Amino acid sequence: MRRFVVEKSRNLITRTTRSPCSTCSSPKASSFLVSPRPSYPTSSSSSKPSINSSLRFLAASLLNPPLYCNPLLFPSFMAFNYSTSPLSVETINPKVLRCEYAVRGEIVTLAQELEQDLKKNPGAYPFDEIIYCNIGNPQSLGQQPITFFREVLALCDHPLILDSSETQALFSADAIERAFQILDQIPGRATGAYSHSQGIRGLRDAIAAGIEARDGYPANRDDIFLTDGASPAVHMMMQLLIRSEKDGILCPIPQYPLYSASIALHGGTLVPYYLDEATGWGLEISELKNQLETAKSKGISVRALVVINPGNPTGQVLAEDNQREIVEFCKKEGLVLLADEVYQENIYVPDKQFHSFKKISRSMGYGESDFSLVSFQSVSKGYYGECGKRGGYMEVTGFSPEIREQMYKVASVNLCSNISGQILASLVMNPPKVGDESYESYMAEKDGILSSLARRAKTLEDALNKLEGVTCNRAEGAMYLFPKIELPQKAIEAAKAANTAPDAFYARHLLNATGVVVVPGSGFGQVSSS
Amino acid sequence: MRRFVVEKSRNLITRTTRSPCSTCSSPKASSFLVSPRPSYPTSSSSSKPSINSSLRFLAASLLNPPLYCNPLLFPSFMAFNYSTSPLSVETINPKVLRCEYAVRGEIVTLAQELEQDLKKNPGAYPFDEIIYCNIGNPQSLGQQPITFFREVLALCDHPLILDSSETQALFSADAIERAFQILDQIPGRATGAYSHSQGIRGLRDAIAAGIEARDGYPANRDDIFLTDGASPAVHMMMQLLIRSEKDGILCPIPQYPLYSASIALHGGTLVPYYLDEATGWGLEISELKNQLETAKSKGISVRALVVINPGNPTGQVLAEDNQREIVEFCKKEGLVLLADEVYQENIYVPDKQFHSFKKISRSMGYGESDFSLVSFQSVSKGYYGECGKRGGYMEVTGFSPEIREQMYKVASVNLCSNISGQILASLVMNPPKVGDESYESYMAEKDGILSSLARRAKTLEDALNKLEGVTCNRAEGAMYLFPKIELPQKAIEAAKAANTAPDAFYARHLLNATGVVVVPGSGFGQVSSS
Repeated sequence: MRRFVVEKSRNLITRTTRSPCSTCSSPKASSFLVSPRPSYPTSSSSSKPSINSSLRFLAASLLNPPLYCNPLLFPSFMAFNYSTSPLSVETINPKVLRCEYAVRGEIVTLAQELEQDLKKNPGAYPFDEIIYCNIGNPQSLGQQPITFFREVLALCDHPLILDSSETQALFSADAIERAFQILDQIPGRATGAYSHSQGIRGLRDAIAAGIEARDGYPANRDDIFLTDGASPAVHMMMQLLIRSEKDGILCPIPQYPLYSASIALHGGTLVPYYLDEATGWGLEISELKNQLETAKSKGISVRALVVINPGNPTGQVLAEDNQREIVEFCKKEGLVLLADEVYQENIYVPDKQFHSFKKISRSMGYGESDFSLVSFQSVSKGYYGECGKRGGYMEVTGFSPEIREQMYKVASVNLCSNISGQILASLVMNPPKVGDESYESYMAEKDGILSSLARRAKTLEDALNKLEGVTCNRAEGAMYLFPKIELPQKAIEAAKAANTAPDAFYARHLLNATGVVVVPGSGFGQVSSS
Repeated sequence: MRRFVVEKSRNLITRTTRSPCSTCSSPKASSFLVSPRPSYPTSSSSSKPSINSSLRFLAASLLNPPLYCNPLLFPSFMAFNYSTSPLSVETINPKVLRCEYAVRGEIVTLAQELEQDLKKNPGAYPFDEIIYCNIGNPQSLGQQPITFFREVLALCDHPLILDSSETQALFSADAIERAFQILDQIPGRATGAYSHSQGIRGLRDAIAAGIEARDGYPANRDDIFLTDGASPAVHMMMQLLIRSEKDGILCPIPQYPLYSASIALHGGTLVPYYLDEATGWGLEISELKNQLETAKSKGISVRALVVINPGNPTGQVLAEDNQREIVEFCKKEGLVLLADEVYQENIYVPDKQFHSFKKISRSMGYGESDFSLVSFQSVSKGYYGECGKRGGYMEVTGFSPEIREQMYKVASVNLCSNISGQILASLVMNPPKVGDESYESYMAEKDGILSSLARRAKTLEDALNKLEGVTCNRAEGAMYLFPKIELPQKAIEAAKAANTAPDAFYARHLLNATGVVVVPGSGFGQVSSS
């Protein structure tokens, strides 16, 4: 199966490059330029070159079932006249209008339309299925869940079967034992009850122990806020930090658009810092300083720095020295460090390792009261890829009791995150150990997934770099590749004539020619170098 | 067990009324006055009498395991000095500071402290356990989940066992069949993949069919947004509707504080309308009109009306005629109707029935383009009480395609709600039918829970009304009672001297004397009649 997938991805790429572009008549759709996105408040005034980049490839399996059904295709309500409706686009919250989210944007909508049409008219297109590479959603692409994790979840969902003899035959002994352990941490074994608003105490203990084992520094259950995936945690921090459009958040460009969307929804200002494609998406402190100063000169009070490590969508893994500089920068400038570390298990090159910012800051001598850090983790990524379970947590250190009380209050308003997601977050941070019945099969599943991801990342990276006019940095980690593609002038003009960004124009043609769904680089805030 | 619980609740109430108050020396802590809450933007300027009410009793089982562990008790970070921290209470988003959420507020925090101390010093208090009646969390109080629902969830979590012979012995045949049906609606059977941002299409079909069967009017899957419980759906609507503090939302007082909290977090203005305790928490259109006009005269643009039916925390069930008037009022005034219908299964009196606002508006001849209505539903309430699963949906009708597109975009930013919660929402709206293997046991479980809730509601209502100085309206539905308690002047003065609201003062004494946790009426916005 995996062999097939790799072949398939290779064929698709080759097919793409050999399809003549009907608009510009170029024999290869191989050169590309991305236009700047007007939605970002500060332009690329940096001394860094702003980089030509365009497409995001998902380095996960390309085997794809139909995933989305577009609600906006032909819904019944479109035929009505809403002239007397009390709400119109002009009268809703303008922050909602300003929010953008490219990974589920117009290219995906078009793909869904094609998919529907493909069912009715097979053979009408030069492809027979849509390949969704727009988002990191491994299980939708055929990746199987870790058996041990699912066994424990099923037993916690239906504890009545725990004592049956058939259960012994169906489930591994350590999964049964783990389910008992987890249920014992829940008052009344009630997995259907609201928990503490930060999450079940015993599960937070397990997560804290996992963080300690990873970092070699103490972790505390009181610092853990369990959430429905990492997204609500990011929203909660933006809500806390942003008072008005005069508050800024430093974000990498290219960036995962959750950050720009969340900042827009909370009415703040995204202060971009540009990653340097020429140095493998390097994060330079001089760039951070320049952008901070530029923002200050515009009256923006910069409150926090977002770092995504491993990078999304850029796939780089930060070096330890670089991380130390970042910690020093935040400390000096009085910034909260928001560390998106959801790809901590996804490292594909032997010369790079993941180090958490907690570990780095502690190794520099900073303790609880010296450094304000939030680390985001999710069950959606890693080797587990349990996106649909919506589990995750943030570890919050260096905030005063008064601020924590406010955070607890906001968490309380939504009562708690879902208990299955909470359980899964604890399993991910406390998987089977040597000697456990499931240990060997668990390790085989884990290694199989991670080595397959690494192999596919390398295959795509190599394939992209072999194409004329296409360059792509090394896929060190995460689940994405972000190649640079140069477009001929005629294609750029054709895009202009079609009133669309050149990268969106290219992505649309790629989809129409091959059925492959990618996200235009401009959706990540990436700007043109021209 | 239930017999015991009823006895226990009776004893506790008796015990409360017989404990002399150490502060005011009254032989009975039986008279009570609630002070107005300064946090509401408009005071009780209504012609309606504003009502003396105080305590919220949960009409669920009073059997209680220790539920919360207070994160703010003695956490390790309290000993540190945060003077160099970049964040302080003065510099966070003031909307967060303004947000209040009483059902997990200071009385609950005190209860958690007592609970911890009780473990160390059993016998130090006049009670031996804490009875949490502050929130509707049935499974934390011993209510068992519906077996069929949990069977299906477990099988969907671990589909690998579906074909095993042991599974036939452990699970009912229709649960296995239902799990297969659900999995077939999920591309690749991937319950670990992100779904469509509104939820899995087939599950939305099942929910729409359930709504149709309930109302007798068509429902459409495109109108359904599946969410992690009802709370995120309420937040999403507030985010859409509120542009600034000049935008107002009409909310009942007393109200479930999710509404005031969410309006505060999104920076809007709560426009209160007062329910009339004297007429069984009647909702009068004249009151709505008065409050709307008052708000308009202050420059507030009122955008929506929140109606909670059955009432939370007041337990009344709206009459059909009243609902028609409400629909007419919204239509005339150009308001979106936000209908909190999460207690639709919780009706305890034979002379009342639940009618959805969708059904009422359709029966009045309003169609898709005539009336803007959002109905919230949750898996946390009803007879299922699956709070920890965080499942729910909103049915959105009467919004233009452009607005729906904006809503879909905002839903996309959080990708999707948790799949187990989605599955459960579909099961709740499509439970076993006559002839299914599970039907009889399902009905027995459902009837057992609903009749027990009804019995306990009546027991508490009667017990409260027998107390001197205490009156309580009929518990027609939902899970709460909201009695009025008159306090003697001396108690009010003692509360003033302690710098606390009289109702909070009473609730604190009740807790200290009996271990029973209730929520002061002022936490629901209720004001004094004096």
